Amino acid sequence: MSQVQQVTAVGSVALDTLDTPFGRVEDAIGGSISYISAVGGLFAPVNVVAVVGDDFPMDEYDFLHDRNVNLDGLEVKAGDTFRWEGRYHEDMNIRDTISTELGVFEDFQPRLPLAAREARYLLLANIHPALQLQVLEQMTDPRLVAFDTMNLWIDTVRDQVDKMIGKVDLVIVNDEEITLLTGRQSSLAGALELAKTGPRYVVVKKGEHGALLVGNDGSIFICPAFPVAHPKDPTGAGDTFAGAMIAYLAATDDIGMFNLRRAMVYGTVAASFAVEDFGLNRLKSLTVNEIEERFRLFRSMVEF
Amino acid sequence: MSQVQQVTAVGSVALDTLDTPFGRVEDAIGGSISYISAVGGLFAPVNVVAVVGDDFPMDEYDFLHDRNVNLDGLEVKAGDTFRWEGRYHEDMNIRDTISTELGVFEDFQPRLPLAAREARYLLLANIHPALQLQVLEQMTDPRLVAFDTMNLWIDTVRDQVDKMIGKVDLVIVNDEEITLLTGRQSSLAGALELAKTGPRYVVVKKGEHGALLVGNDGSIFICPAFPVAHPKDPTGAGDTFAGAMIAYLAATDDIGMFNLRRAMVYGTVAASFAVEDFGLNRLKSLTVNEIEERFRLFRSMVEF
Repeated sequence: MSQVQQVTAVGSVALDTLDTPFGRVEDAIGGSISYISAVGGLFAPVNVVAVVGDDFPMDEYDFLHDRNVNLDGLEVKAGDTFRWEGRYHEDMNIRDTISTELGVFEDFQPRLPLAAREARYLLLANIHPALQLQVLEQMTDPRLVAFDTMNLWIDTVRDQVDKMIGKVDLVIVNDEEITLLTGRQSSLAGALELAKTGPRYVVVKKGEHGALLVGNDGSIFICPAFPVAHPKDPTGAGDTFAGAMIAYLAATDDIGMFNLRRAMVYGTVAASFAVEDFGLNRLKSLTVNEIEERFRLFRSMVEF
Repeated sequence: MSQVQQVTAVGSVALDTLDTPFGRVEDAIGGSISYISAVGGLFAPVNVVAVVGDDFPMDEYDFLHDRNVNLDGLEVKAGDTFRWEGRYHEDMNIRDTISTELGVFEDFQPRLPLAAREARYLLLANIHPALQLQVLEQMTDPRLVAFDTMNLWIDTVRDQVDKMIGKVDLVIVNDEEITLLTGRQSSLAGALELAKTGPRYVVVKKGEHGALLVGNDGSIFICPAFPVAHPKDPTGAGDTFAGAMIAYLAATDDIGMFNLRRAMVYGTVAASFAVEDFGLNRLKSLTVNEIEERFRLFRSMVEF
């Protein structure tokens, strides 16, 4: 067996107010880092790099200590925690942002503690690409660098996004972002094109429709989503997917194409739990056994 | 080996004018029956039941004779062939109907020749449910009856749609239709519900996102779509899927869950060819070997 490696994850911590057809929650703990560390910590040690305000209810993160999540890199700064409010339509693939208050996140300057620097697996969740670069430059010797972004950065600081894409091993974007990045309507055509620009792997997330993995050797993996009959809140599904995927890679320390496929299936299975309840609720009680059981169920649903 | 069975397919033959981001064709041979018989005939003998006007360029169907397609049930009536004009958006999942002229299709009264009546596999493509019932009542002893419909009939003659659903073995609808039929946003929840009302199997087609199969025993199969980097025209993809699926079932004469899964994969593989060119163009030159090759490629793309 290969040795379990550590993950460093940088991104946002937020207080989310969420309206879905199934209810509303206010100031729920959210942000990419909450989902990534909640699920990632089930697979491998996770070093968190993020910032919160002094209003952040830190006891909500108590459950992360049992999951091998190292919060030394979670800076607490005088001011307000990043707040986001969103409203989902009847078709929950569509959501409107009602408000965004950056708070202390606006001046976030990621500083990595030693353990975070030495991790072999780095997940750069969606923050400004200049900050992602700062983080990458602090890393000692990462084996795999995964990168997420958003339409805002592609629209406003495209050159910096491209620079990052040229430096990372794995790009994880959604179907809108791959079209924005490449001008291709087809996720497959876009991913194949992007994989020629530097990264070894490109993953395109398609929400309830699953995800696509393309290698820079032209190989393709189609990963359907684990179907959820009664989703309540899609918030954080993509971050849960990425968090489980990277932490599974770190746990197995194998970044070959076949293990990437397995990692993606763990990602979609983990995400299927996340959407079953609001915010982090379902992930808080989630166990590795439940994930493994659903992984086996998933396999039985795709065999032919 | 089980004996190859015959398929009877009833539906529309149309002359389609199609606008996609990749070009325009006028009066292309289309309608569900054209796609179903073009691909179905590669797997099993297909008996066509449909109507065309005396303006129909029958030589366009010459290639069907080589595919074991029996056109005895294709009625030629004085008047105009059904014409449909559609325009696809940049995102080809969205299309607008520009015009529909029913022509001789308006008074279609399906009459089945003897061979058509005796087929063991019946595919009721999308026509008025009262006509579907007329066809079903003419069949001698069908082993599997598959049924498609559309939002128009669900909205206007819902009771007749429900009556048909209660009589068939396999319902094939798309994601909008399953929501319309069951009120469920989730295709999975809708399919599970519909499968309790009579049919042994429910298939939900999701276009480029693949399809879902649910059995009335609660079993689930997720079938991703074979990814197409450069689709040109999605017209007929759903009918090609259904035609290949039912004809594969007839060819193998096995309607168990596992063979249904394989049949769906043949369906998605066949549909991936259909969308590569306008109208029937790609299907006209398609061979069984090409389908088998892409079937193997598909398997390699979903393994983990």
